[in-house]
Amino acid sequence: MKNFKKGFKMLAFLLFINFLLFLNKALNSEEKILKITPETQQCIGCHSIYTPGIVKDWKESLHARTFPSVAIKKSPLERRISVERFPDFINPEYVIGCFECHSLNSQLHKDNFDHMGFKINIIVSPKDCGVCHSKEFKEYSESKKAYALKILLENPVYNKLVETITNISTLLPSNSTLHETCLGCHGTRVQVKGFKKIKTPIGEIEIPDLTNWPNHGVGRENPDNTLGSCSSCHPRHSFSIEIARKPYTCAQCHLDPDVPAWNVYKESKHGNIYFSKEKEWKFDSVPWVLGEDFKAPTCAVCHNSLIVSPDGEVIAERTHNFGERLWVRIFGLIYSHPQPKKGDTSLIKNKEGLPLPITFNKELAKEYLIEESEQQKRLDQMKNLCNNCHSKDYINGHFSKFENTIKETDEMVFQATQVLVNAWNKKIANKENPFDEYIEQLWIKQWLFYANSIRYASAMTGAPDYATFKLGWWELKHNLENMKKIIKLHSKNKN
Amino acid sequence: MKNFKKGFKMLAFLLFINFLLFLNKALNSEEKILKITPETQQCIGCHSIYTPGIVKDWKESLHARTFPSVAIKKSPLERRISVERFPDFINPEYVIGCFECHSLNSQLHKDNFDHMGFKINIIVSPKDCGVCHSKEFKEYSESKKAYALKILLENPVYNKLVETITNISTLLPSNSTLHETCLGCHGTRVQVKGFKKIKTPIGEIEIPDLTNWPNHGVGRENPDNTLGSCSSCHPRHSFSIEIARKPYTCAQCHLDPDVPAWNVYKESKHGNIYFSKEKEWKFDSVPWVLGEDFKAPTCAVCHNSLIVSPDGEVIAERTHNFGERLWVRIFGLIYSHPQPKKGDTSLIKNKEGLPLPITFNKELAKEYLIEESEQQKRLDQMKNLCNNCHSKDYINGHFSKFENTIKETDEMVFQATQVLVNAWNKKIANKENPFDEYIEQLWIKQWLFYANSIRYASAMTGAPDYATFKLGWWELKHNLENMKKIIKLHSKNKN
Amino acid sequence: MKNFKKGFKMLAFLLFINFLLFLNKALNSEEKILKITPETQQCIGCHSIYTPGIVKDWKESLHARTFPSVAIKKSPLERRISVERFPDFINPEYVIGCFECHSLNSQLHKDNFDHMGFKINIIVSPKDCGVCHSKEFKEYSESKKAYALKILLENPVYNKLVETITNISTLLPSNSTLHETCLGCHGTRVQVKGFKKIKTPIGEIEIPDLTNWPNHGVGRENPDNTLGSCSSCHPRHSFSIEIARKPYTCAQCHLDPDVPAWNVYKESKHGNIYFSKEKEWKFDSVPWVLGEDFKAPTCAVCHNSLIVSPDGEVIAERTHNFGERLWVRIFGLIYSHPQPKKGDTSLIKNKEGLPLPITFNKELAKEYLIEESEQQKRLDQMKNLCNNCHSKDYINGHFSKFENTIKETDEMVFQATQVLVNAWNKKIANKENPFDEYIEQLWIKQWLFYANSIRYASAMTGAPDYATFKLGWWELKHNLENMKKIIKLHSKNKN
Repeated sequence: MKNFKKGFKMLAFLLFINFLLFLNKALNSEEKILKITPETQQCIGCHSIYTPGIVKDWKESLHARTFPSVAIKKSPLERRISVERFPDFINPEYVIGCFECHSLNSQLHKDNFDHMGFKINIIVSPKDCGVCHSKEFKEYSESKKAYALKILLENPVYNKLVETITNISTLLPSNSTLHETCLGCHGTRVQVKGFKKIKTPIGEIEIPDLTNWPNHGVGRENPDNTLGSCSSCHPRHSFSIEIARKPYTCAQCHLDPDVPAWNVYKESKHGNIYFSKEKEWKFDSVPWVLGEDFKAPTCAVCHNSLIVSPDGEVIAERTHNFGERLWVRIFGLIYSHPQPKKGDTSLIKNKEGLPLPITFNKELAKEYLIEESEQQKRLDQMKNLCNNCHSKDYINGHFSKFENTIKETDEMVFQATQVLVNAWNKKIANKENPFDEYIEQLWIKQWLFYANSIRYASAMTGAPDYATFKLGWWELKHNLENMKKIIKLHSKNKN
Repeated sequence: MKNFKKGFKMLAFLLFINFLLFLNKALNSEEKILKITPETQQCIGCHSIYTPGIVKDWKESLHARTFPSVAIKKSPLERRISVERFPDFINPEYVIGCFECHSLNSQLHKDNFDHMGFKINIIVSPKDCGVCHSKEFKEYSESKKAYALKILLENPVYNKLVETITNISTLLPSNSTLHETCLGCHGTRVQVKGFKKIKTPIGEIEIPDLTNWPNHGVGRENPDNTLGSCSSCHPRHSFSIEIARKPYTCAQCHLDPDVPAWNVYKESKHGNIYFSKEKEWKFDSVPWVLGEDFKAPTCAVCHNSLIVSPDGEVIAERTHNFGERLWVRIFGLIYSHPQPKKGDTSLIKNKEGLPLPITFNKELAKEYLIEESEQQKRLDQMKNLCNNCHSKDYINGHFSKFENTIKETDEMVFQATQVLVNAWNKKIANKENPFDEYIEQLWIKQWLFYANSIRYASAMTGAPDYATFKLGWWELKHNLENMKKIIKLHSKNKN
Repeated sequence: MKNFKKGFKMLAFLLFINFLLFLNKALNSEEKILKITPETQQCIGCHSIYTPGIVKDWKESLHARTFPSVAIKKSPLERRISVERFPDFINPEYVIGCFECHSLNSQLHKDNFDHMGFKINIIVSPKDCGVCHSKEFKEYSESKKAYALKILLENPVYNKLVETITNISTLLPSNSTLHETCLGCHGTRVQVKGFKKIKTPIGEIEIPDLTNWPNHGVGRENPDNTLGSCSSCHPRHSFSIEIARKPYTCAQCHLDPDVPAWNVYKESKHGNIYFSKEKEWKFDSVPWVLGEDFKAPTCAVCHNSLIVSPDGEVIAERTHNFGERLWVRIFGLIYSHPQPKKGDTSLIKNKEGLPLPITFNKELAKEYLIEESEQQKRLDQMKNLCNNCHSKDYINGHFSKFENTIKETDEMVFQATQVLVNAWNKKIANKENPFDEYIEQLWIKQWLFYANSIRYASAMTGAPDYATFKLGWWELKHNLENMKKIIKLHSKNKN
């Protein structure tokens, strides 16, 4: 009977555990016991009434469900924060809440203001996130992404292109339109131009008056003089690694006609598998286990996530310098070229004195670009990633096609450039603004739309229809022919 | 021992409940005890053999799983039907089945016919759905959607555009082609032109002979003289609120190049979050709880669903008049303008006598359009919705950009219109049909494709690449330049 | 007390079962007891280290989880293999692993090589898959898909089109570029041109040197002289029926601008329902039960899967000859026409002696095309499929619109062809290469882009905006007008 009772107790215990498990699942995250700082509790007191959506987002985020003291003890591969110890003002026994982020480095934040008795920054900058995610902050700050605004508007060539496209008649484009076009992705300059009063449900309050706000572009200039916006990819206030890893995030900016990474991915085999199976994959695991958490690459797999094999071996290190794994730059410029050494590409000068990594004649500004050995190293690393599902020969075959495509598309742009130079020489077009006349627009399309697209289709080993008809060879050929026809027509009309 | 037995019974009971829960989940809906009217039982008797797909759809629909007597007792916010009491012919103790819907208002239905001994309507019209969903029927009937067919084909300006595009050579377009193009969305005129015999597995039967059928366009004219088709959004026979709420439904008609709401949403941050997380959201809750059922807006959130806060406070009332929350109309016409007061916009006359809300010179037909105060009220309501996740200042920043974009795109269209008028005056083009010549086609693109697209991108605070290169400023600028070039070339040729 | 103990045992047993079920779910597939051949065990020994991704894919595939001896005993409708008995070299008590597939028919495989002591084929060809899936192999081998490479490059007309589009300047296109454009879908010629040494983590190894590899196009020519690649749709090494059935697979090649099946589906009601509900559907059931496993058609439902009704009645037989259910061919050629009798369409000769199923004057090469009675039979079968959710009259209405659209789009192409012939006759263009001049490019667009697109939109009863503005009547009309204008301008210039 004793044994019997013991057995019964065991059984009851098992059932009870089961019941608890069920309960745990049934209750939503709100019911969990969160240890929240008194400051954040006050934020939530009001904001769960006034902006309940973001409070809900936060409550389900990892920030609200993890104690820093636990997070910092994880094994190196599992860690999501990169500092070795917290600064004094972080109490690791409290979850990270509103106040913890919106009060950081307040002395640097020109957007700091008195809000209900607290000194609050409107914008949480990469430097603020870097308090715990120091490595990510550093990497990002050195990337081309961080300089995305600067290298667009402070490069006179690009600036001319931007202004030529987005103005109404002969005026300069408005800040507002720049903000909704190029700077939507590249980021705006957010400065404090003073203070202003606004009406709220709890009366008039005074807040910093920000320029070009709101914006979450990757190269945003923040009121604390840092560059970037972590919420470009980890949207506020879920801070989601899942969303950041899914290709929809990259797709906000990297899409056709000028950067059709997303469009090409969608039409590729890898994209096909992603769409078919992604609901069974895990997008929030750290490290991210190839073959287990996911079965086909997404943008983040190849370009920046920490990837390990099912055996736990590191296949690729995490990086928030998004160009770091790349050897060649295939978009945004006239010809492809080795990746720049530094994120701030506005420092580059080519032999013609222009702030571009390559001349019209395809001469590289070598000193600013990574060496061949570095290129090879990065290519080998990428091949290593592919090698987890594909054989060496399969991979070599793929990349040799890619190499050929780069060569051929560069050649097709070179031919177009020669036609353009011819047009300038013959005074068919005026070189002063190289972007505003019809033949110049065709030339822009040749490199910015068609050559780019074909290279993307090649890089991702998919999207053959894209490379053929959509924005591919069909257009690349005909566009060049049209450019030539303009010269021919002009010559004929003259005679 | 007694206590022991009691404990054991408790345990057994718990296990049994568990088993029942499992059973309930395992069995599919068919096994549920449905109280079905004898008439509907007869329908199902045959149709589960002849059209099993729709019977399955219905069986899993709420109509088949809810007793009207229960549905009507729900709390105001939870109610899915809007009548206060049922008419006599509805027995609220039976679920709503085939016969209940297909036999309504038969005296009004010219498509009523004798089918296996029952008087059946082929088409269930909005008025029929309105027997239980009276408020939705009324709202819809007053919306622009209900008049979508009328305001296209009975407006001579639009009719001319339609005819110019869809005919082969100089003939009028065929009904069939109209039906598959413009009227696919706008709806067809479904009339009974007589009766006809068709062959079926159970022999020849006689049925009403309908014109322009099948069609589920939003402004369909039905054989009972009502307007619209509830199945445009709630597809037959699932009547799904989930499908209607998901953006794929709106996307059937609101997409590029003329109404790129969907394309822009896809590229926006909100769209990104939707795609990443929608599988965890609940799309069939009534009311729809912000922050709990969904975490980012979809079309339905902003434009028509009943939205409440996590505390149960109403954020937005449900409406089936889909323009009701809008203050400005940004597509489909030459210039943006205040929303029309009434759904039937064919009644509008501008100062030039044309059935348009605005003249070529941007003069508004004010008496037909909502007042500024009404505009402000609606804008404030929309801002209130945004305010659940975004701060006042953030929202004001967004909408001030939108305002500027409306102004600038209208200006860019105005410039194009001036070029066109110039072309007409100089006899470069013939005004008689304003849609059929090359320069006129460019002008159409300016407002119908490019200006529209930029406004959508702005409205949804996303899609900067769309607003730049895709169908945005890049095209808006170059298209205007091309129009000007035509005038210039003509002048040159003359001299 | 005895009964009590019995009850208790029963309870304990139930709990234990429950526990096992939980365990089974919790453990991943690796833990399952797989009976694997010694050869495959050796493959896995290395490859789970060197290419863990594909090993993981395989482990979760049906091949790794099913014993052939069990698979062959399934009821006819449930069977996934089609042989009646296995050849001797298949031991049906072992799962199908690496070696089982990569060692088949080695005498035919020029890509066979000695790999770690085993004779391995690099490429698993359709014939190899046919060892178990014999019916599918046979059907596929007779389909147009199998001949996709041949009928493109060995048809001089098509070959000319391919070469005209994809070369840089006047040279022939490179194999590499062909491979990434047209042949990405159509398939490449994979031949063994010798052997080569490559470096691997385990030292240098010698492998066959393949031409045009890697490639998974549908008409790939394999080193064993078979045609096709099963992994075009069932990607390696998951062999997934789920992925093959989901429209993303078809979408890799059937998309805009030339074959916009996917684009049109996305905008259709059926596509809308798919996107909204697919996560609740079952894509791996055999047979595939309409109304239960899925609620709206996907590509595979209409074109090739085995579909049964909820009562288990066969609605459509499985076929891997993907044109077999089609009566009319609506894309890829100048005019629509009856489906060809055979997959190898390069055998067709029209009255003008060209390898095309129809002449410029719309005369059919009848002897190569299916008869009207066969067309009717196939159309009736398709209607039968639709009939599971739609009424006879509804379906007839749909297909009569489709018929009209085919007629009208053919007429619009015919008008364009007449303009082109006129241009050739007047020496405005040179007939020799019918694809390389501006007016010829417009003519190609007329049939390859616009007429095609409108027909697809019509066929799938959706996408009215596509058929109107996107690649539809708007373009079809204006393109024809542009062609006429060229003739007119030329005549004017002459005078």
